[in-house]
Amino acid sequence: MLVLVTYDVSTEDDAGKRRLHQVAKQCEKYGQRVQNSVFECLLQPDELMLLKHQLIKIMDENKDSIRFYNLGKKYQSKIEHYGAKNTYDPEDVLIF
Amino acid sequence: MLVLVTYDVSTEDDAGKRRLHQVAKQCEKYGQRVQNSVFECLLQPDELMLLKHQLIKIMDENKDSIRFYNLGKKYQSKIEHYGAKNTYDPEDVLIF
Repeated sequence: MLVLVTYDVSTEDDAGKRRLHQVAKQCEKYGQRVQNSVFECLLQPDELMLLKHQLIKIMDENKDSIRFYNLGKKYQSKIEHYGAKNTYDPEDVLIF
Repeated sequence: MLVLVTYDVSTEDDAGKRRLHQVAKQCEKYGQRVQNSVFECLLQPDELMLLKHQLIKIMDENKDSIRFYNLGKKYQSKIEHYGAKNTYDPEDVLIF
């Protein structure tokens, strides 16, 4: 299933900048960055649980906001993009 | 149907700052800001077409990125939020 992860991390102080960096690093392990604070992650249910757990541990729940949107298995037709930063289809065949 | 609108607008110059402001203003007419550049919009198909048309007109397609995610009609169970900036359910009953 494709899960969209969007986040706002308060970067008022150095601790916030570190959190922002760590949140992005975690998301990069699981998926593709499609915008500054938006990731598309192709996940199994157990992977989603793990990612949530890791992000919740990093974030400051009084200052930061993390949202998860489950787009399911048939997600391709649900997504439209206009402008810069084209992305690849995570399930596309990669030919080397 | 609930449509998630996420965007990255390049604010390197004043024109970009104006575009960012205009994109947000348009989205505010159609839905709820849930994060800095993330809106949840409850839309009919014709409204979605109109919003897309307006945002594409505003954006600079070489610098900016706008993404639309269609979460359908049964969206409540697809969304999870952790941390600050709680939001309301657009279809909830508002009691005055």
